[in-house]
Amino acid sequence: MADEALFHFLHNELIHYAYKSAEQGEVENGRCITRLENMGFRVGQGLIERFTKDTARFKDELDVMKFICKDFWTSVFKKQIDNLRTNHQGIYVLQDNKFRLLTQMSAGKQYLEHAPRYLAFTCGMVRGGLSNLGVKSIVTAEVSVMPACKFQVMIQKM
Amino acid sequence: MADEALFHFLHNELIHYAYKSAEQGEVENGRCITRLENMGFRVGQGLIERFTKDTARFKDELDVMKFICKDFWTSVFKKQIDNLRTNHQGIYVLQDNKFRLLTQMSAGKQYLEHAPRYLAFTCGMVRGGLSNLGVKSIVTAEVSVMPACKFQVMIQKM
Repeated sequence: MADEALFHFLHNELIHYAYKSAEQGEVENGRCITRLENMGFRVGQGLIERFTKDTARFKDELDVMKFICKDFWTSVFKKQIDNLRTNHQGIYVLQDNKFRLLTQMSAGKQYLEHAPRYLAFTCGMVRGGLSNLGVKSIVTAEVSVMPACKFQVMIQKM
Repeated sequence: MADEALFHFLHNELIHYAYKSAEQGEVENGRCITRLENMGFRVGQGLIERFTKDTARFKDELDVMKFICKDFWTSVFKKQIDNLRTNHQGIYVLQDNKFRLLTQMSAGKQYLEHAPRYLAFTCGMVRGGLSNLGVKSIVTAEVSVMPACKFQVMIQKM
């Protein structure tokens, strides 16, 4: 409980801070999302290193994605991804029906426009985690009904 | 373990971000510490609200300080404050012999000058926590030998 609260509060500070700078005209608004994404990327890199310390080698890309959906997600968000789908051509869709960083917001459409700033950090974190496991990707997120959320991972073949 | 890592990584991002803005000339260097302190203040306010939800009323100022040293510190840093001293005139010194946010740094004197940026957030967090318990204060920190650290709380009489 305490740890989850701490994570939420710190995450809120990151957002607050990124957007406050924008309001003060120090940076353009558009760069806030990128900044949050970058912060998430570094955190994801660090975390995956810890989490996979004692893990067996991954068989393939799908195996890596399953690890992200189960172990990684549980460590960070205290629940697993509810649904993982793939087209077997490098696109994965991770669906979380009750995404922790959105549950404190109203479920109505009122705040839907603010959702992206609550997802950017996590997109970065997934990208960073995957990157450290040798999988280069682009990660985006979309919300249709709060607090459900879909993360789309597009693998970048090298 | 995972939660602690998450806290450390997010904390590092806050510092990294605050100082990166300074390097880019967006804000003066001196404001970074204040920014980190302010972030800590808000997080402390939020956390103490959760932590004291089911707590009995505090008897006095000393009782509040003991709560900070034991329950609050344990929730955030996984250990208690090692030593609490007071002059009974509104000054409290909280000593942590192995402060978690400093343990990843070298114990030598090499990085001593960077210590303040790793303490500012926590100073703010203590001030925010106390503030929400009705105790107005000024909180400063000093390091003589890493990773030991002293937080000085000066109560501001209203």
